[in-house]
Amino acid sequence: MRIALGLEYDGSAFCGWQTQPGGCAVQDAVETALSQIAAHSVRTQCAGRTDAGVHALNQVIHFDTTARRPLTAWVRGANTLLPKSVAVRWAREVGEDFHARSRARGRAYAYLLLNRPERPGVHYTRLGWYHRPLDVERMQNALGPLLGSHDFSAFRAAECQAASPHKELRKAEVHRLGELVLFEFAADAFLHHMVRNIIGCLVKIGDGGRPPEWIEQLLHSRDRNLAAPTFPPNGLYLAAVEYASEWGLPSAGVRLPSDVLLSAGLTSIVLS
Amino acid sequence: MRIALGLEYDGSAFCGWQTQPGGCAVQDAVETALSQIAAHSVRTQCAGRTDAGVHALNQVIHFDTTARRPLTAWVRGANTLLPKSVAVRWAREVGEDFHARSRARGRAYAYLLLNRPERPGVHYTRLGWYHRPLDVERMQNALGPLLGSHDFSAFRAAECQAASPHKELRKAEVHRLGELVLFEFAADAFLHHMVRNIIGCLVKIGDGGRPPEWIEQLLHSRDRNLAAPTFPPNGLYLAAVEYASEWGLPSAGVRLPSDVLLSAGLTSIVLS
Repeated sequence: MRIALGLEYDGSAFCGWQTQPGGCAVQDAVETALSQIAAHSVRTQCAGRTDAGVHALNQVIHFDTTARRPLTAWVRGANTLLPKSVAVRWAREVGEDFHARSRARGRAYAYLLLNRPERPGVHYTRLGWYHRPLDVERMQNALGPLLGSHDFSAFRAAECQAASPHKELRKAEVHRLGELVLFEFAADAFLHHMVRNIIGCLVKIGDGGRPPEWIEQLLHSRDRNLAAPTFPPNGLYLAAVEYASEWGLPSAGVRLPSDVLLSAGLTSIVLS
Repeated sequence: MRIALGLEYDGSAFCGWQTQPGGCAVQDAVETALSQIAAHSVRTQCAGRTDAGVHALNQVIHFDTTARRPLTAWVRGANTLLPKSVAVRWAREVGEDFHARSRARGRAYAYLLLNRPERPGVHYTRLGWYHRPLDVERMQNALGPLLGSHDFSAFRAAECQAASPHKELRKAEVHRLGELVLFEFAADAFLHHMVRNIIGCLVKIGDGGRPPEWIEQLLHSRDRNLAAPTFPPNGLYLAAVEYASEWGLPSAGVRLPSDVLLSAGLTSIVLS
């Protein structure tokens, strides 16, 4: 039978999702735990291969097993075996025609950027950081031309394995939350480093170094060499994966990493 | 001259604020960095001695130095020398009569609790966790009798070094934010483990195991043995320290008001 799981993880201690010979990947940790529960070797497929240091709030994976276990075994049982930085959120039995990657209709990523002169302390593994003031409205205006279906080669890593550079960007928003800047992106799928490369360009626009029109010029150039360097992985979260409702998976609507947002605001607690 | 600093830190990798022979404390890391900048040995005093695993968003410390440095050296210079999990937020020169602990008029703590059946993954070092549903209104009702000046011996750790068990609790609030429960406490000062002991009791009330009146009975008993076990440190944040405005220290409310975060933290990413 085929089982789908929802996972969250702190990617800072891992070398990314995808299995590595040294066993340093999230996938290695997850397959080790699931294999113990199944009492046979389990191989998983994921919806989005997150890079080293990238976090997931709702990664979706699937695997096949001959073991008959209650669904709770794949949640609570796995959570007793997994490293503390990885947790299973839910488990569902799905048909053999389900596939976490190829059946996904859309993915959403969030990027949290600390925008203040001093570097982060409390949340240093889970926030990007930029020291000069960023103009959020300027960045939001720059994003408009990216929406819709385009060839995103200008924001594609050299090692990207996607079959096509054409993706449909469905959402691109920037919000300021005090010292934090929150970026939200949704698309059918993303190229390798696409979000982090766009963030790198947005930051150069937000601090006034480049005009808002620059990002559209980059898009049309389809030349990765013209764009800004890839932004660090710390602030990137795979926030949601969307499937057709017929699969019966828990809603893709996700919570943001609200503890980061909250603790960023906790210092305003009125003392008296 | 005397310098006051505002610090934030992730306490999960430290054995608490207070200096230890092994050098595992936040104070050790901070004094090492400041001593390097001062070119002489620096000793610090803090406003609130956080325990192992407890975080700070705005810890305030002071130290004396004979070194003449621009204030930015105590911020940016220290931040290049400190571990990544500790950051200096600000520095101010203060008079010799300033003292981070004895001049503090109030402290505020926040506790973030993940309330869902599955344990945390992404935020495992920065959240407490309780698996059964908690009734926030019931917990809020229980808190009323704790407000004001009381002998808080029932919530005091055996090793507490405070001169008196009498404290003035000025704020005690509970809010639900999706899967998170946020507790906010403000007082003139707190006894050792006081917040975590109150949280332990509130959780027993919130899940229906004890009536809301129980906490008032505990308060009046002044008997620590009757109260619930101390809740884990992971979710506890020293959020702010209050001083008279004449000291000219940055306002504790430099970040977002939590009501903004109430809505922001719950925003769902819409996929299409």
